[in-house]
Amino acid sequence: MNVTAAFIEAARGLSHVDLLLTNARIVNVFNGEIEHGNVAVHQGRVVGIGDYRLAREIIDLDGRYLLPGYINGHTHIESSMLDINRYAEAVISRGTLGVVTDLHEIANVCGMRGIEYILDSARRLPFSLFVMAPSCVPATAMETSGASLSAGDTRSLLRRKGVIGLGEMMNFPGVLAGDGEVLAKINAAASSIVDGHAPGLGAFDLNAYIGAGASSDHESVSLEEAREKLARGMYVMIREGSSEKNLEELLPLVSDKTYKRCLFVVDDRSCADLLYDGDVDAIVRKAIRLGLEPVRAVQMASINAAERFDLKHVGAVAPGYYADLQVVSDINRPEADLVFRRGRLVARGGKAVFKVSQDVRPTPGGSFNVGDFGTEHLRLKPKSAVFPVIEVVPGQIITRKLETEPPLDGSGFIAADIERDILKLAVVERHAGSGNVGVGLVKGFGFKCGALASSVAHDSHNIVAVGTCDADLTIAIREVVRMQGGLAVVSQGRVLKTLALPIAGLMSDRPLSEVAAVFGEVGQAARDVGCVLAAPFAVLSFLALPVIPELRLTDRGLVDVNTFRFIG
Amino acid sequence: MNVTAAFIEAARGLSHVDLLLTNARIVNVFNGEIEHGNVAVHQGRVVGIGDYRLAREIIDLDGRYLLPGYINGHTHIESSMLDINRYAEAVISRGTLGVVTDLHEIANVCGMRGIEYILDSARRLPFSLFVMAPSCVPATAMETSGASLSAGDTRSLLRRKGVIGLGEMMNFPGVLAGDGEVLAKINAAASSIVDGHAPGLGAFDLNAYIGAGASSDHESVSLEEAREKLARGMYVMIREGSSEKNLEELLPLVSDKTYKRCLFVVDDRSCADLLYDGDVDAIVRKAIRLGLEPVRAVQMASINAAERFDLKHVGAVAPGYYADLQVVSDINRPEADLVFRRGRLVARGGKAVFKVSQDVRPTPGGSFNVGDFGTEHLRLKPKSAVFPVIEVVPGQIITRKLETEPPLDGSGFIAADIERDILKLAVVERHAGSGNVGVGLVKGFGFKCGALASSVAHDSHNIVAVGTCDADLTIAIREVVRMQGGLAVVSQGRVLKTLALPIAGLMSDRPLSEVAAVFGEVGQAARDVGCVLAAPFAVLSFLALPVIPELRLTDRGLVDVNTFRFIG
Repeated sequence: MNVTAAFIEAARGLSHVDLLLTNARIVNVFNGEIEHGNVAVHQGRVVGIGDYRLAREIIDLDGRYLLPGYINGHTHIESSMLDINRYAEAVISRGTLGVVTDLHEIANVCGMRGIEYILDSARRLPFSLFVMAPSCVPATAMETSGASLSAGDTRSLLRRKGVIGLGEMMNFPGVLAGDGEVLAKINAAASSIVDGHAPGLGAFDLNAYIGAGASSDHESVSLEEAREKLARGMYVMIREGSSEKNLEELLPLVSDKTYKRCLFVVDDRSCADLLYDGDVDAIVRKAIRLGLEPVRAVQMASINAAERFDLKHVGAVAPGYYADLQVVSDINRPEADLVFRRGRLVARGGKAVFKVSQDVRPTPGGSFNVGDFGTEHLRLKPKSAVFPVIEVVPGQIITRKLETEPPLDGSGFIAADIERDILKLAVVERHAGSGNVGVGLVKGFGFKCGALASSVAHDSHNIVAVGTCDADLTIAIREVVRMQGGLAVVSQGRVLKTLALPIAGLMSDRPLSEVAAVFGEVGQAARDVGCVLAAPFAVLSFLALPVIPELRLTDRGLVDVNTFRFIG
Repeated sequence: MNVTAAFIEAARGLSHVDLLLTNARIVNVFNGEIEHGNVAVHQGRVVGIGDYRLAREIIDLDGRYLLPGYINGHTHIESSMLDINRYAEAVISRGTLGVVTDLHEIANVCGMRGIEYILDSARRLPFSLFVMAPSCVPATAMETSGASLSAGDTRSLLRRKGVIGLGEMMNFPGVLAGDGEVLAKINAAASSIVDGHAPGLGAFDLNAYIGAGASSDHESVSLEEAREKLARGMYVMIREGSSEKNLEELLPLVSDKTYKRCLFVVDDRSCADLLYDGDVDAIVRKAIRLGLEPVRAVQMASINAAERFDLKHVGAVAPGYYADLQVVSDINRPEADLVFRRGRLVARGGKAVFKVSQDVRPTPGGSFNVGDFGTEHLRLKPKSAVFPVIEVVPGQIITRKLETEPPLDGSGFIAADIERDILKLAVVERHAGSGNVGVGLVKGFGFKCGALASSVAHDSHNIVAVGTCDADLTIAIREVVRMQGGLAVVSQGRVLKTLALPIAGLMSDRPLSEVAAVFGEVGQAARDVGCVLAAPFAVLSFLALPVIPELRLTDRGLVDVNTFRFIG
């Protein structure tokens, strides 16, 4: 960003600026105060605050509040199920103008090609996408992903414009073991930034993990855990996602002494939450509701993220900063009335008002090499009298490991036990055409008849399906393949409802309102067949992720996460 | 800095660490608390805080406080009159292990060669020198310097290891005027950091200056000025130098809401102050004495500077951070008992205990091309009845402009008026052999007989001299030339006392105690001949700096700084 003589002249009040926002209550993230004044914008940047008069366009804010655009410090945008263009519309209208994202979902499906698709698409959009190179693709060696990223890929990504660091290093066991490839990835990012992901880590192991380079964490679920991480030098990202909500527990961490080391992130936010609740703005409102001083909440959603990631000229309303701004009426319940990107109006009243030019690149499809899938692929042979069962823990993404004596069908294979809510779970490898199908049992969905299937299954995104019988399971899995990605609800041989996710099998190209509506309908369809979970597809999507305790199923089999071993 | 498997193993407590500091009260700059524990150091870095046991060396701190080494956010090390090797001994023994320096003094004399000498020498020394590329060499076009640095030089310097940004942009009038070369320098540093220097700037002009890129300032002398600068996004460097002391005035700026945007700097500190008062540690102690909470004072002298300059792994006692540490006994009056650099003891009880290996590079000499200097060069012709006089303002570096009717000597030239304390002032160009001699009048030194001369004269460092008669002035100037740099006090035709400064005419190669002692003696000699100023050579050194109001003398003549024009 080069400074010009014209910019300086405008800042000195000697020439007309492009835009003047008058009568604003400006949230000042540097001194924590709110000041009344005019803000002048020229060449896409704030030239100053003061009694400016000369302007090509003047907007009287009439005492409304002017805030910096929010910066979301950590998210996987694929979790919105929205294509990058639609995602941008969704979050920009909420006041988010900076997004730090780890694209490990699409990377697990499409590798570098997927990351490049999003990086290149984002350049045409009126927000700043800061990409963290995914560090763990695949998440483990115990599953089959569509791609893997090496330390060489990390180095190559870090040279790309828009890539600012190494994404959450979920493989903390690999770090602690001193794994060569893991350390090579961290060392590739030695001169930039490494995000951490260390649920439950403390004491010596936390020291080692931080010492290795991970300088943030968004996985704290208890106040004590977060306190220790902050004390050891980590930025604490307070996460309020769709499945993981840590704000209420962690807010007491935020004090006069610590608030600069804390920021808000959404991690994974569903399209429904984006539509009905919001993005970072929803966290800000909730934090204020919980007692946080509004200016401090704004700081944690803007300048603190900029500082954590060494982002220049964003996160504040100040001279030289990009005019990425939002106007809100009520500072105690801030909702973006107007959003400006580089001084241009891009959203009004919660609606995006910018046009996305047609993407010149083809969207990357999902890979669905599953051959001719039939019920025979779902057979589960008993090896002993007892069989391990994944138990869903309501409201959390951890699971418990049960053991049960399952019923057998007429052919001697294990069957679902509907009375005891023990259903069949399958993970069908979709990338490599390996024919791998992991089959297991799960407790907690509660439905009596039918099946759910999805191509969103963290992090390898094979097809995951849960059902009461192999017939419905097969139909649901086939439906996902037919759509080349998506969610399906099946009952008694009939497809009841689907949401197509043609982009990498993870995302739709439809607008937020449409995707959220259909997403709501598939969820409702799942509940209609008796599912007792509030967010059945969200729960389902985490059952194949073998980095979160206690028991998971991948395409290669059941994984005891505590021991990192296949069982059963 | 690459992480190794051995480092991780040590951090996990599984192998011996190099050094274990037990029973420490650790100042935690992240949460503002003091915690009790052991700190383990391996491979020059902190591996962790906790109950470590296995160590090759154990030092029991017996409850003493463990702090990060201080980082001085802005200084001109040449002002200490110490060569870089001696300077390092002086400040390291005070707990300073990081120094951000603008080398514009030596650059004005020796150009790139001078900067390279210091950069290369610093690599052998146990502290971190972070160089800001000098932005204003020469400071103005109204004087003759030994070298000038172009925007091309800025670009070249910024590519060098150890150069982290563009030094204080003193030419704020040039910025405000949109001067092409000035903007080219700023734009060369667009992806790094630009330090500001904007005494008294406010409102529109401050916006313009900040918007152009200057993101810090160390020139605030009033609380209101500092408040405005901080609000507009500048880091406020609270300066406590030898001549400029702003701490007491600015300390009320530091609050729970603002302290992270404030840091301590020394700007110019004399050898005497380094010896008898201290470096950054002196500011910390004074701030605590004035009521600042000790941990916050330490934060402002360590992590805040690291954050302002995006310096990684310094400024804290935490895993992965360099083991740049100091031990103090009394947190309310912290003085470094022990100083560790990368885990090795480098100072104890205020004395450096490291050895400086012989420098392989020759030290750069001063340039003293003044020919055969005689009294005839000091003649001052009256052009009208009144003549402008520079009035020294005690305790400040600004001057006032007086007008007087001076007495004439027998040949019709202006003479000193000893009764009214109006002495003759001369600036003798020493670099280019131009023969330029600026001659003027100054009020405020107060001596009745004799002359002082010095080759330290900001920023071009020509020879500046003040005296009651041309004979003594000439002897003093000749003595500085004979020494090839230094300070001299002359009276009644006799050289009373000198301090030789052979390195660039600015610095001595002798140790701190010796330089400070002789520096004290030349000051005393000046007072012995009747000088009423507490720091006559410091005052003298600023009289040739035409960027500070109100009236200055360069080798090319008298400058009215308010209008930026030659007069008289």
